Amino acid sequence: MIANRGEIALRVLRTCREMGLRTVAVYSQVDDGSAVVGEADETVRIGPGPARRSYNHIPAVIEAARMTGADAIHPGYGFLSENPDFAEVCAAEGITFVGPPPEVMERLGDKASARAAMVAAGFPLLPGSTDAIDDPDAAKSFADEIGYPIIIKAVAGGGGRGMAVVRDPREFTETYRRTRAGAAAVFGDGRVYVERYLDSARHVEIQVLCDTHGNGVHLGARDCSVQRRHQKLVEETPAPGLSDDAQREIGESAVRAVLSVGYVGAGTVEMLVDTACAHYFMEVNCRLQVEHPVTEMVTGIDLVAEQLRVAMGEPLRFTQDGIRFHGVAVECRINAEDPVKDFAPTPGLLESVELPGGPFVRVDTHVAAGSRIPSEYDSLLAKVITWAPDRDAALRRMDRALAETRLRGERIATTAGFLREVLAEPDFRAGRHDTGLLDRMKDRPLGGVAV
Amino acid sequence: MIANRGEIALRVLRTCREMGLRTVAVYSQVDDGSAVVGEADETVRIGPGPARRSYNHIPAVIEAARMTGADAIHPGYGFLSENPDFAEVCAAEGITFVGPPPEVMERLGDKASARAAMVAAGFPLLPGSTDAIDDPDAAKSFADEIGYPIIIKAVAGGGGRGMAVVRDPREFTETYRRTRAGAAAVFGDGRVYVERYLDSARHVEIQVLCDTHGNGVHLGARDCSVQRRHQKLVEETPAPGLSDDAQREIGESAVRAVLSVGYVGAGTVEMLVDTACAHYFMEVNCRLQVEHPVTEMVTGIDLVAEQLRVAMGEPLRFTQDGIRFHGVAVECRINAEDPVKDFAPTPGLLESVELPGGPFVRVDTHVAAGSRIPSEYDSLLAKVITWAPDRDAALRRMDRALAETRLRGERIATTAGFLREVLAEPDFRAGRHDTGLLDRMKDRPLGGVAV
Repeated sequence: MIANRGEIALRVLRTCREMGLRTVAVYSQVDDGSAVVGEADETVRIGPGPARRSYNHIPAVIEAARMTGADAIHPGYGFLSENPDFAEVCAAEGITFVGPPPEVMERLGDKASARAAMVAAGFPLLPGSTDAIDDPDAAKSFADEIGYPIIIKAVAGGGGRGMAVVRDPREFTETYRRTRAGAAAVFGDGRVYVERYLDSARHVEIQVLCDTHGNGVHLGARDCSVQRRHQKLVEETPAPGLSDDAQREIGESAVRAVLSVGYVGAGTVEMLVDTACAHYFMEVNCRLQVEHPVTEMVTGIDLVAEQLRVAMGEPLRFTQDGIRFHGVAVECRINAEDPVKDFAPTPGLLESVELPGGPFVRVDTHVAAGSRIPSEYDSLLAKVITWAPDRDAALRRMDRALAETRLRGERIATTAGFLREVLAEPDFRAGRHDTGLLDRMKDRPLGGVAV
Repeated sequence: MIANRGEIALRVLRTCREMGLRTVAVYSQVDDGSAVVGEADETVRIGPGPARRSYNHIPAVIEAARMTGADAIHPGYGFLSENPDFAEVCAAEGITFVGPPPEVMERLGDKASARAAMVAAGFPLLPGSTDAIDDPDAAKSFADEIGYPIIIKAVAGGGGRGMAVVRDPREFTETYRRTRAGAAAVFGDGRVYVERYLDSARHVEIQVLCDTHGNGVHLGARDCSVQRRHQKLVEETPAPGLSDDAQREIGESAVRAVLSVGYVGAGTVEMLVDTACAHYFMEVNCRLQVEHPVTEMVTGIDLVAEQLRVAMGEPLRFTQDGIRFHGVAVECRINAEDPVKDFAPTPGLLESVELPGGPFVRVDTHVAAGSRIPSEYDSLLAKVITWAPDRDAALRRMDRALAETRLRGERIATTAGFLREVLAEPDFRAGRHDTGLLDRMKDRPLGGVAV
């Protein structure tokens, strides 16, 4: 059973079909008639549009699995995919959860215990407080100790909210008080912690895959530095600016770290990489990532198939040495958002859909002409992935593919044109961009951004 | 300028766009509004529907190139792609023809001189007469000498027409007379030649690529044994049943053979392979093949880009040792033909088009919802190509992709469902099929063949 929607639900279904597995799709009221509902062997409507009443509603999801006799649940990404409670309920019901054991998710989901686990495994961390610091003076002396710039983060924050950067020690105490007050007001939890802040950093992540027999491998590094408010827009592998040796070393170190906590399944170790190519742990994502296709393109490995094999108890079919990396793959996320209106989501009816094709282009999407893009969920319409022997050719191919991508509807705008501008940025082209790329672009007027 | 139509015109345009080349599309009246016309930088209508008045009409094509100042013409496949006269006119006009020199095309286009060139290069041939044999007694003693079964072929025949197999020497003379008379009646040319006939053979072909500096490489072997009346339906690489060593040896031998005649550009050496894995030359195709994508999928090489680089005079960017082969790729041709009506073409209006996507699936097509499939040209709607680390996974992926392929229109039928039945044939599944596979399937009722 696929406990998700959109492109990832169809992505998982495709592999199930190739493996000869019967599929159950669950869907909310607003997703009736979606692609995965049309393709699945069985379908169950689990509730109304809002995710908390359908895709995030554990009793409804479990009931659908019970009704259909599903023996395993693939959670996709988002929704219940990193919810230890859900994984525990699955276990109690005798249903295989396709993902790590609940206690591993719990440990890695908690910032403090995840950092502690990484320290124990020898994985480098940015200097910072593992716990919240409630005393302004203690916080100030901690900040002075680790050095500026620092970032103050709300424990309950995330996704770019509840954080503030301090560059001047004299401004620390005032910013600390303000961030605490803001966090208390917005999240109902005023606790904050303090971390060293990197001015120029890349977002790099290692794809890992572990079986239930203690074996683990990495599938290379992805760079996801092109972000807008911590939302990834463009992802690629290998990571530009990091040598093959560096990527291999970080990869092996990531595998050791996740194996040390008993990790099982596919996962991603996210880190920041500074201008000196030093890397610092951010978090582990205990699930398939949106950007997993780039890894598939350069390794030839179907990650969903490997997730399912691990869930069936099979040992990994390859050792680290057996994994070969070929060429460069890039992914662009096409969102139903209007770049000229501060990327406001544009739900509505897709009237026509033209998707790119031809050599070395992959498209993962659930939409077609006539699809209604609901306002209830994220605005991802399609992922366009290109491959080429080298990065420059992969980017030229992506530009060609984006030029062929035309998703139209009366109220729909997409990010396809904007992404072509990002690809054309000299810093991105040269592979020397960092997570600040889009902020710097924002200071200039957009050129030919069209739907 | 792209002197073609349909999927291959769009295929060539995509690579031009990735290389930053401006494009001109030519089109006939019935192809107005086609995909390539929509994507090209400039377009020229060159005549009415029938190919002899447009795509095959040399003055019209040349005039379009003149008008637009095109400096090179990619002929695609079919139409003028193997026409030495056209290549000569291009040369006279100072337009680069993307293909081998006219004299090479002429030499390889003539059955007798092509066979002679192959003999000289040490490439094996089936025993047969290089020239027509006009005397029945001489023909009979030649047939007795090379041994039965033999095949009598009209010099002017081709595409499966004008040929007859003789198994019993006592029937030779009668069949010889009948084939001559038939050829005279149908082609206006009664000349025939005699060749050894292989009862069980595979169609194998080697993709070669040569530059203008005397360098040549092969890009592996394709098996195209799934044929219906000499039309290929399913193609794959590498060729099942042939060892890697055998494919390499045949490949190197093919490169030597084409270099010996001064070949330039992409080309294909076609051969028959018997049950003992011996190979026998059939012909050289002096152009890109329909099935070139499977070679691209396993080598990572964009063949059209290499064709264009060779045409610009660049030396090959790789040596034979630099070409790596990964995994298995399969292509299925989706035709607008009705399998239950003896594969009669079904021109008409495509009302809805659903194409497969996701991991390791490539689609090359020019059609979309609203496309009108003209009766003037071949019935190819789309090529679906899948890749996987091994053949079994590639075939399962293809079955999944074909299941997602839905091209519908009031009068349109397609071969997608039929191809799924071919894929399910035990002989094909095991890779032990030969060119007789579809004839043997024909003797059984078709199962769930649907549009």
